Amino acid sequence: MRRRDRDRTATFLVEGPQAVREALAAGRVQTLFATAAAVERHPDLIAGAEVSVLTDKALASLTETPHPQGIVAVCSTVDIPLGEALTGTPRLVGVLAEARDPGNAGTVLRCCDAAGADAVVFAGDSVDPYNGKCVRASAGSLFHLPVVRNIAPADAVAALRTHGLQVLAADGAGEDDLDDLADSGVLAGPTAWLFGNEAWGIPADLAALADRRVRIPIYGSAESLNLATAAAVCLYASARSHR
Amino acid sequence: MRRRDRDRTATFLVEGPQAVREALAAGRVQTLFATAAAVERHPDLIAGAEVSVLTDKALASLTETPHPQGIVAVCSTVDIPLGEALTGTPRLVGVLAEARDPGNAGTVLRCCDAAGADAVVFAGDSVDPYNGKCVRASAGSLFHLPVVRNIAPADAVAALRTHGLQVLAADGAGEDDLDDLADSGVLAGPTAWLFGNEAWGIPADLAALADRRVRIPIYGSAESLNLATAAAVCLYASARSHR
Repeated sequence: MRRRDRDRTATFLVEGPQAVREALAAGRVQTLFATAAAVERHPDLIAGAEVSVLTDKALASLTETPHPQGIVAVCSTVDIPLGEALTGTPRLVGVLAEARDPGNAGTVLRCCDAAGADAVVFAGDSVDPYNGKCVRASAGSLFHLPVVRNIAPADAVAALRTHGLQVLAADGAGEDDLDDLADSGVLAGPTAWLFGNEAWGIPADLAALADRRVRIPIYGSAESLNLATAAAVCLYASARSHR
Repeated sequence: MRRRDRDRTATFLVEGPQAVREALAAGRVQTLFATAAAVERHPDLIAGAEVSVLTDKALASLTETPHPQGIVAVCSTVDIPLGEALTGTPRLVGVLAEARDPGNAGTVLRCCDAAGADAVVFAGDSVDPYNGKCVRASAGSLFHLPVVRNIAPADAVAALRTHGLQVLAADGAGEDDLDDLADSGVLAGPTAWLFGNEAWGIPADLAALADRRVRIPIYGSAESLNLATAAAVCLYASARSHR
């Protein structure tokens, strides 16, 4: 399923029993396609939706994974406008500003969920959250917390500030050290983290939008962390400071 | 290059200019293969080693990456015995106990390096550190800190304890909370982290070898973090407590 088709129909594919279980729990499944063998193996899933039974070959033609385990769901998209995602008193938000690799983006979404984030924003030219690899890497998290897309980074930053969040850009060349911000109490405030591109980090014009540019201390000889592990360290530093 | 061939010759391949630069700096390059275009593009690399100039097609036949950017090095393996890796007073060691995915393993190696670990151990049935995808994901870190392989997890744990390190298993079902251990000062001690498998976590018999089984707090609805992001959070929690 191409992005154009996903956008036109406001649907996307979810593959494999575990992800389909999450989609059903979130009430997002429109149609379930399954092989006869999968129908027998997963009576709990089949009970929850309208099912079309397909041959192995027909099912394989729908899917992107080499081994979809016989089950694929067509789901309604989940994204909502940023204003709606920020109702209440948000304390932690993740913003993917230029993430192009869907596996990395899905892993960041999963980290945001684990760290208790209130929302995740796929801003600017970031990969589509409904990309199959992103959905798989999110391991169900796409259905767990508000997801926003189709918003320019500058608009997202402005809205996040209006809702009382400081905006911190994860930036290997940043002027603030993550541990120092934890020690000084800065991380205890409501925070939106801005994450850049997996190859070239966060572009200067995006980093300039943030209130602070924050580097994770590098104690060894590595030049940097990769996008998802850097996001995990930043998000958990915030989560810990919030408690 | 298959694992059998790597083991027989005690060599492995490093692809692309940045990784080759790290291999040269570490004095590990035996032979450099490059296309004529790459020779022109990277005079600094060519100066450091014996070079065989190949056609694009011949070079492509050597490599695993779709775009090796015209340059591949045959390198001597870097691993050393664990006893040698633990000389001095090690404070932080990462142990991959059952990691099968080379990309994840290489990312953990990169995190260990960034967090200032003294060594990384590829124990038991873990993926080979010289696997091409692992080398690429490590982003040069394979050459930055002592790497150990071909050791049973129980032997590694015994040796790490002898060298004064407590052994903590990262375990989603662990009885200790990571933040509690940071608060109580436990993380301030010299620590070896044991990381399990990317799909099924750490097996009970391996977790039982550790002094403590430690869970990362999950504040949202995610079931867990993935291997590399979990390792990043644990390693940086230790690094912060050590300082």
